[in-house]
Amino acid sequence: MGNPQADIVHHLMASYREIGGINHFGSGDLPAKGTVAQWCEDLLQLLFPGFFAQGAISADQLEAVTASRVESLAGRLRMELQRVLRLDPKQETSEARVQSLVDEFLLQLPAVRQLLRSDVQAAFDGDPAARSFEEIILAYPGLEAIAIQRSAHLLHKAGVPLLPRMMTEWVHGRTGIDIHPGAEIGSHFFIDHGTGVVIGETCRIGSHVKLYQGVGLVAKSLAAGQALSGTKRHPTIEDHVTIYAGATIVGGDTVIGARSVIGANVFLMQSVAPDMVYALGDQEHRIRDRQSRSGKPAQKP
Amino acid sequence: MGNPQADIVHHLMASYREIGGINHFGSGDLPAKGTVAQWCEDLLQLLFPGFFAQGAISADQLEAVTASRVESLAGRLRMELQRVLRLDPKQETSEARVQSLVDEFLLQLPAVRQLLRSDVQAAFDGDPAARSFEEIILAYPGLEAIAIQRSAHLLHKAGVPLLPRMMTEWVHGRTGIDIHPGAEIGSHFFIDHGTGVVIGETCRIGSHVKLYQGVGLVAKSLAAGQALSGTKRHPTIEDHVTIYAGATIVGGDTVIGARSVIGANVFLMQSVAPDMVYALGDQEHRIRDRQSRSGKPAQKP
Amino acid sequence: MGNPQADIVHHLMASYREIGGINHFGSGDLPAKGTVAQWCEDLLQLLFPGFFAQGAISADQLEAVTASRVESLAGRLRMELQRVLRLDPKQETSEARVQSLVDEFLLQLPAVRQLLRSDVQAAFDGDPAARSFEEIILAYPGLEAIAIQRSAHLLHKAGVPLLPRMMTEWVHGRTGIDIHPGAEIGSHFFIDHGTGVVIGETCRIGSHVKLYQGVGLVAKSLAAGQALSGTKRHPTIEDHVTIYAGATIVGGDTVIGARSVIGANVFLMQSVAPDMVYALGDQEHRIRDRQSRSGKPAQKP
Repeated sequence: MGNPQADIVHHLMASYREIGGINHFGSGDLPAKGTVAQWCEDLLQLLFPGFFAQGAISADQLEAVTASRVESLAGRLRMELQRVLRLDPKQETSEARVQSLVDEFLLQLPAVRQLLRSDVQAAFDGDPAARSFEEIILAYPGLEAIAIQRSAHLLHKAGVPLLPRMMTEWVHGRTGIDIHPGAEIGSHFFIDHGTGVVIGETCRIGSHVKLYQGVGLVAKSLAAGQALSGTKRHPTIEDHVTIYAGATIVGGDTVIGARSVIGANVFLMQSVAPDMVYALGDQEHRIRDRQSRSGKPAQKP
Repeated sequence: MGNPQADIVHHLMASYREIGGINHFGSGDLPAKGTVAQWCEDLLQLLFPGFFAQGAISADQLEAVTASRVESLAGRLRMELQRVLRLDPKQETSEARVQSLVDEFLLQLPAVRQLLRSDVQAAFDGDPAARSFEEIILAYPGLEAIAIQRSAHLLHKAGVPLLPRMMTEWVHGRTGIDIHPGAEIGSHFFIDHGTGVVIGETCRIGSHVKLYQGVGLVAKSLAAGQALSGTKRHPTIEDHVTIYAGATIVGGDTVIGARSVIGANVFLMQSVAPDMVYALGDQEHRIRDRQSRSGKPAQKP
Repeated sequence: MGNPQADIVHHLMASYREIGGINHFGSGDLPAKGTVAQWCEDLLQLLFPGFFAQGAISADQLEAVTASRVESLAGRLRMELQRVLRLDPKQETSEARVQSLVDEFLLQLPAVRQLLRSDVQAAFDGDPAARSFEEIILAYPGLEAIAIQRSAHLLHKAGVPLLPRMMTEWVHGRTGIDIHPGAEIGSHFFIDHGTGVVIGETCRIGSHVKLYQGVGLVAKSLAAGQALSGTKRHPTIEDHVTIYAGATIVGGDTVIGARSVIGANVFLMQSVAPDMVYALGDQEHRIRDRQSRSGKPAQKP
């Protein structure tokens, strides 16, 4: 060990040769978390002009600013698409396909904006603490999460691998809200607080749905792993449903009927009919004086 | 579609004209997440001198460094206040009011420091894994969250819109701890781990209160939305209460009495007297051998 | 108040003198969150070459790139170690000790890579939504959390204070997953989604263990605080155990036996034998039509 640093490099090189699957070299760039993050931030500026930027935009400048943002976003999306399509041998990677993916994505952004407008309205209507639309756009993590998911969902539907997941994972890291790009979500969607929310790949969610922090819409028999790939594994939530904090709803055949309300901490593996309230009943609690040692069980008073 | 990029810009401009409420241009700067984030980081340096900075400060330099930090923070707070006050037509936006908001905020920081000193002590006393005060300041997300909330609370009480929420949302993104700037919180406050904690706008929390991850202190009838704005909707927690992980306490009339302990995963919509332990009773569990298919219900052994 | 800014500085200086324990000056640098964050990002590049970097690495360049990364990481680790060892009067801070800590840490990275390879495999096998190893490395927060924890655990075992906790807290902030550097974790470890997971300092976890979001492996009698420092306070999880979302397992004597499955939202303070399924039984629910006001309790249908 005359030169520990040389030994370290030597052992690492041996490890890079011998342990496969977690190295990537000699075959072109991967998308990097940093560039995907920057791309998502710029996408938010295009979706909410005047927000998420450092300086004001005058009405005169708007068209020029928009044209320059579109050009820049398109160029970087083209580059990320080339990186991710190359990773999957089944993908067509021609210049023409990449360009048409880019164009189609950007042409759908006005439709995404229409949905996001409905999401801002739903947050304002649903939260007595909300003071203004500006507050919702600048300080509600749920809005950031759904803005990125709605965008990533377009790329997911177009068959783009990896990049949509990196986008939703970027916003998961910022907000604690993990929505798979595969999930189909209707208008007027509102997640309050949001930390710990998980929405699985094959969820279908109607319009005017409201979720609180810690809600999981997850898969049933996770033990089966890759064998379940591609099947509907996550719940269906119909229109105007509200699900309170910490509720977990499981399984691909589980349907929460329209206008139903699911209480906090409920764990559900079956469907609920429309127009129901489904909450925890009186749980048995152990209530005792801190001085006593006995701790008799007691019904919740 | 001879020029898809021109089409994209054209459709976006139409969207910006037609879909209102999620655009902001032609009317001055908004506060930006980036500048609020930087301002919060600098505020932490002023609150904990020598921490959160890249280099050491000698005792001689401290006064000069402090003066320069105060000047820089004051200038940037003035700018952010001008931005947010302009958004609300009911606000007085004169130079004199802005300056007095800035001065009063900064003059209260020594009192904030006194509270934060008590919070560090509470974390050290409450967590056997804590090795030193330095560890708590540098590696406990709960301390960062309460430092920003205590500061944002001053601006919230002074009637400043939006900015206090952007501050607490910045630290929510970093820590998973969501404390509304409106919440009133006593001394010696300790949140351990903290991810998923939600503390609502009208909570009142006494001194020596300890919360674990996933605790929600939330509102009851959230369905009523904006109609409830301004009413007391969130619980009151008296002195020396401990609330374990995942417990949810609901409603503006709910009071947890002094020195009581609330167990993990408890869901509570009623008050608890002082000096009680309130925990989940023996829940019915379904316990079976993995080989068997029957799955008889069984009491927890 | 002729000069409020001078008053502010004056009061802050008084506060810095009078309120001890939350200031640090005149005694050398502390580790800073920013430099620890950058160091962790660079460590991930060394562990997963070709990932986490902006540009591609050709096979020819790999050895030179690795040597330069090792040199840079070693230099910065030396600096961070000097900072943290100085904080603890019981630590030996000689140049020789620091150098040997650095060398030993880096020489163990190939063994860490072997474990991380098994973790990537476990994620791929366990999640039907996973499409490729690249997706797991680039978009699964659980992998980032365990990569940093496995590295921080080496420094923790070597007796380094503070720095290991700052590393795991950095990744906690990014992922919502809080694993103490003291926890001992076997191979093929998979955390899905992960937000809200807490794994305490004295946990022992076997191989092929799978955890979902919100799982807590926590201490029992937290009220005792510092008196419990150093004792085994957190559970033992044997090989091939799966623990579903939101389950909380408490206490240092609690052992979850090999191949057992713990259901979602279960709260457990006792051991479970091997090969068991331990889930919530039929909870009583309160189910009613939204129109009715009565709300009769009902068994889950």
